[in-house]
Amino acid sequence: MSRAITILGATGSVGRSTLDVVARHRDAFTVSALVGGRDAQALAQAARESGARFAALSDASRHAALREALSGSGIACGAGPEAVAEAVARDADVVLAAISGAAGLKPTFDAMKPGRAIALANKECLVSAGDAFMARARALGVPILPVDSEHNALRQALAAGRIEDVVSLTLTASGGPFRTWNAQAIAAATPAQALKHPNWSMGAKITIDSATLMNKGLELIEAGHLFGVGADRLHVVVHPQSIVHGLVYWRDGSITAGLGAPDMRVPIINALAPATGRLDFDAPRLDLAAIGALSFEQPDLERFPCLALAIGALERGGAEPTVLNAANEVAVAAFIAGEIGFSLIAVTVEQACEHMVGEWRSPPADIETALALDAQARNVARKMVESARARAS
Amino acid sequence: MSRAITILGATGSVGRSTLDVVARHRDAFTVSALVGGRDAQALAQAARESGARFAALSDASRHAALREALSGSGIACGAGPEAVAEAVARDADVVLAAISGAAGLKPTFDAMKPGRAIALANKECLVSAGDAFMARARALGVPILPVDSEHNALRQALAAGRIEDVVSLTLTASGGPFRTWNAQAIAAATPAQALKHPNWSMGAKITIDSATLMNKGLELIEAGHLFGVGADRLHVVVHPQSIVHGLVYWRDGSITAGLGAPDMRVPIINALAPATGRLDFDAPRLDLAAIGALSFEQPDLERFPCLALAIGALERGGAEPTVLNAANEVAVAAFIAGEIGFSLIAVTVEQACEHMVGEWRSPPADIETALALDAQARNVARKMVESARARAS
Repeated sequence: MSRAITILGATGSVGRSTLDVVARHRDAFTVSALVGGRDAQALAQAARESGARFAALSDASRHAALREALSGSGIACGAGPEAVAEAVARDADVVLAAISGAAGLKPTFDAMKPGRAIALANKECLVSAGDAFMARARALGVPILPVDSEHNALRQALAAGRIEDVVSLTLTASGGPFRTWNAQAIAAATPAQALKHPNWSMGAKITIDSATLMNKGLELIEAGHLFGVGADRLHVVVHPQSIVHGLVYWRDGSITAGLGAPDMRVPIINALAPATGRLDFDAPRLDLAAIGALSFEQPDLERFPCLALAIGALERGGAEPTVLNAANEVAVAAFIAGEIGFSLIAVTVEQACEHMVGEWRSPPADIETALALDAQARNVARKMVESARARAS
Repeated sequence: MSRAITILGATGSVGRSTLDVVARHRDAFTVSALVGGRDAQALAQAARESGARFAALSDASRHAALREALSGSGIACGAGPEAVAEAVARDADVVLAAISGAAGLKPTFDAMKPGRAIALANKECLVSAGDAFMARARALGVPILPVDSEHNALRQALAAGRIEDVVSLTLTASGGPFRTWNAQAIAAATPAQALKHPNWSMGAKITIDSATLMNKGLELIEAGHLFGVGADRLHVVVHPQSIVHGLVYWRDGSITAGLGAPDMRVPIINALAPATGRLDFDAPRLDLAAIGALSFEQPDLERFPCLALAIGALERGGAEPTVLNAANEVAVAAFIAGEIGFSLIAVTVEQACEHMVGEWRSPPADIETALALDAQARNVARKMVESARARAS
C-alpha cells in the first residue's frame, strides 16, 4: 500500500529533501501533486523525477513556462490560486506543508481534510493562527505531524506517556553563528555572516532566524500549540552540536529525548511514514563516542533579544505571536537586503508588537483575521524599517 | 485505587529506595509483604514504617528475632523458605523483585502470576535463566518492568515505535572508578578503590561489577531478553556522567533516549506506577546547562575484559551467560574478601566458562536446571579461586 503524498513548497529546502526521501521509497510513496512558487524549471523537473500527477505554481504568470517545461510528460499543471487549490484538493494520504511564511497559511488550512494527515513544516500556521489551526485539525480529526527536527523529536519522546504527566518540554537551539560573539560584534554582523549556519543547510529566512534565535522562539510558540502546553512548561537550552533536538521532563523524574544527526530527511521520513511502522533511512549512524561530547548552555536573552521577544509573545499570547512573526519576516527581509543592521531586527519586532498590542488582543479566530493582522503588522514593520533607514542616511 | 506492592529484598539498596518511594505516595501504594534476608531489625522497622501486612526473612534461624522485633505491631511474620513463599503468594498488584544473586531466582519466578506485574531489579532471572523467565512471563501475561535505570530508560525510549523497527539499543556505562586508569593500575586495584563508584550508591557486588564493567555486560544480556533483540543489535557506550541511560536507534534515522539524574528512585517509581499514568517524584531537576557537557567514549575491552567476556556469552548464548554470572559472583566475593586480585575476576570467569562450555550447551529450560548449572559453575569458580590463592601464597 503506497501512500499518496502532496508537497506544498516542493522546490524549497524542505520540499527537495522530501522528494529525496520519496525517491528512496518508490514502493512506499506515490506523488499526487507538487506545488511551487515561481520556478517552473525546478518544479517541472521535480514532477518528472517523482512521477507526480499534477504540478502547480502559485505565480499565475508562470503558467506558460511550466506548461512548456512539462510538455510531453503527461503531467497536468496549472498556475495561480485556482491551480494551487486544485493541487490541494487532489487525493492524498499526507500533505507535506512546506510553503514558508504567511503564504503557506491558506493552502495548509485548505489541505486539512478528514482521513488525511498534515506533515507540517510551515511555521506560520501555528505561530500566526495556531488556535484556529489546531481547532480545525481537531474538528476534522487531522493529525498534525511536525517535520521540524525539534518538534518531531519531541513528538517521538512524548510517546512515553500522557501530556498531563509532562512537567516541561525543552527544545535545543544550536545557538547559531553568533553564539560566542559579544553584543557589539553581533550588532555589526553582516548578512553573509548571519547566513553561515554551523549545522544546518536551510533557506535564508530561517537561517537568519537561527542567528537571532527568533527561530527557537517561534518553535516554542509552535510547540505550545502542537502539544497543548503553556509557556511555563516550555524551555530552551543551547546545544551547539544539534544532536539532541528535544527533551521531555516527566513528573516522575524520568526524561525522554529525541536525537539525530542534523539531516532534515530524518524528521521528514518519520512524519511521512504510515502509522504501521517506520521506513528505512540510512542516515549516517550517530556515533556518540566519535562525537565525544554534547554541550549545553543557557540561552543569553541579552545578546539575543529576539528570543526574549518571542517568549514574551508566547507568555502573553493573544494576537502578539501573529504580529511578532509578521514584523520579523519584514525585518529579516530588510536585513538580508542590507536595509537595516542586525540589531534592528529585534528593535523592529519589538516596536511593531508595542505599536499593535492595543488594537489586537485576542488570537485570530480564523485565517482571514490572521492574514489581515499579518498584513497590518507588515505595514507597521515596513514603516519602521523605512524610518530607520531615513535616520541612518 | 492504591496498588498493593510486595518487595522481595526489602532491606537491600533497591528495596530501601522502593520503601522511600512508597512512603512518598501513601495514597498510591499499600505494602502487602516485605521479604528480607537475615536482618530482623531492619525488616521489622521497614514493615512498621510502611504498614506492611506481612514480613518474612529467608533465613529461618532469624524467626524469633523477627517476631520479637515486630511484637505489638500486629504484622504477621515468618522466616525460611515457606515464609518467603507465603509472602510471594499474598495478593499484590506488583512485586518488586530485588533479591540479588541466584537467591532471587526462585522467589521471582514464583512471584509471576496472572494479573500481576513484576518490577524487576534482580539480574539473575534474565542472565541465568532468561529464556525460561521470559517464556513464563509471556505464558502468564505478566509484564516485566525493568527497574535498572538503563533498561527502564530503554523501555521508555522504546515507546516511540515497534521493536521490529529498532536498528540497535545502546546502554551507557559510567566506566566505573577505573575508567581512566591504565591496565597495570587496574590490576593492582584494592577492594576499597573498586567500591568507590563515581555516580551511584549501590550494593558492594554491583559496585565491583561496575568497576570491571561486568555489570554492563550482564545488562546487555538482560536487555536482549527484555526487549527480544540479539547481540548484533546491542551496544555499550561509556558515558561518565550517567545522565543518558539508554538510546534506541530506529531504522528511519531517528533516535530516542531515556535520561535522568542518577537516582534509583526515578526508575523505581516509573516501574511501580499504574498503567494509567506517572506519579510525582521531585527528583532534582536535571539542568543540562548547569551540567555543561555530556561525554561519550568507546568502552575499552582490553582494560575491561569482563565486558568482552559478557559480550561473548551474549553472542554465543546457550548456557554460557549462566556460567559467566555464577563464576563472576564467586570471583567478586573472593576479590572483596581479599582472596584474589582485581584482574583475577576476569581470569576466573573466563576459565570457568571455558571449563564448562562443553558440558552445557543449551540455555537452562527451567529454574531447577539454571540453579544446578549455577551451583556447578560456582564450584568450578571456587576451585579456581582456591588454586589462584595457592599459587599466590
